[in-house]
Amino acid sequence: MGADALKRLKTVEGHLRGVIRMVEEDAYCIDVIRQIQAVEAALNKVSSQILENHLNSCVITAVQGSDKKERQRVLKEIAEVFEMSNKL
Amino acid sequence: MGADALKRLKTVEGHLRGVIRMVEEDAYCIDVIRQIQAVEAALNKVSSQILENHLNSCVITAVQGSDKKERQRVLKEIAEVFEMSNKL
Amino acid sequence: MGADALKRLKTVEGHLRGVIRMVEEDAYCIDVIRQIQAVEAALNKVSSQILENHLNSCVITAVQGSDKKERQRVLKEIAEVFEMSNKL
Amino acid sequence: MGADALKRLKTVEGHLRGVIRMVEEDAYCIDVIRQIQAVEAALNKVSSQILENHLNSCVITAVQGSDKKERQRVLKEIAEVFEMSNKL
Repeated sequence: MGADALKRLKTVEGHLRGVIRMVEEDAYCIDVIRQIQAVEAALNKVSSQILENHLNSCVITAVQGSDKKERQRVLKEIAEVFEMSNKL
Repeated sequence: MGADALKRLKTVEGHLRGVIRMVEEDAYCIDVIRQIQAVEAALNKVSSQILENHLNSCVITAVQGSDKKERQRVLKEIAEVFEMSNKL
Repeated sequence: MGADALKRLKTVEGHLRGVIRMVEEDAYCIDVIRQIQAVEAALNKVSSQILENHLNSCVITAVQGSDKKERQRVLKEIAEVFEMSNKL
Repeated sequence: MGADALKRLKTVEGHLRGVIRMVEEDAYCIDVIRQIQAVEAALNKVSSQILENHLNSCVITAVQGSDKKERQRVLKEIAEVFEMSNKL
């Protein structure tokens, strides 16, 4: 997935720690909710990026490969994470 | 995309017409919001299904094909609709 | 809820009918998915608007009223549609 | 917001740290995406819970209070976080 996803996730971790601190210091509820939403938006970006990398590596390999079951598995996974993203 | 997506979309259309009738008859706001959310959940299902069909047809053809640009285009589209689904 | 929500919902209905026509005419899957996502974004706007009206009318009345159960019910509904919106 | 939100957020932080470790150890992309989605689902639950507490405390106080501007501000915030939740 590369260094970029890792870097972004560590930034999100720092952001989330900031949210925890806000709750510990009894910050205003709506401000906390807004920061949680910002964390989620950042996570969405990371997962989009990871998916794009995955499409351009594993998915190409699997779909061009001769193993039909593996190809079906890899495509099914894409459909599943898409469906899940609709439920978040 | 097949008859199933069409059938589901027509059901959603009937559902949406029901929501419009609720608003015309001045139904309770929260009941309207809940029905709009149900319409959205149904639309999510249709788009997941269309994506799955797409993966198992056009995407396989493009990725196995010899046109590298076409392959990139098709994979980029998947990443784009995934990213968009995260914003809905 | 007013004329504005009704007008927006009728526009969404026209949009959805356009999507159905696309499927009937066997349009490209990804274009259909993108249009479904646009319909969902429009529905999100309508429900946000209806909620805002609801907050500024029924919710004020209930919270200022003397019926504690009614107040709890109205506030619980807000929490419920918020939670549901997180799952869409 | 109370001890429960704090506890949940700390659990989410542990979960996110697990995701970072997965990326460091070069785990399978789809597994990472699924774990990121699980983190987001957990964050949704925390924000729903914080909103519910907020409705039953600050919102009641503001709506029952005599300061009309404060009341409007508090209700507008609810509408805003609802709208934002539709975009995540």
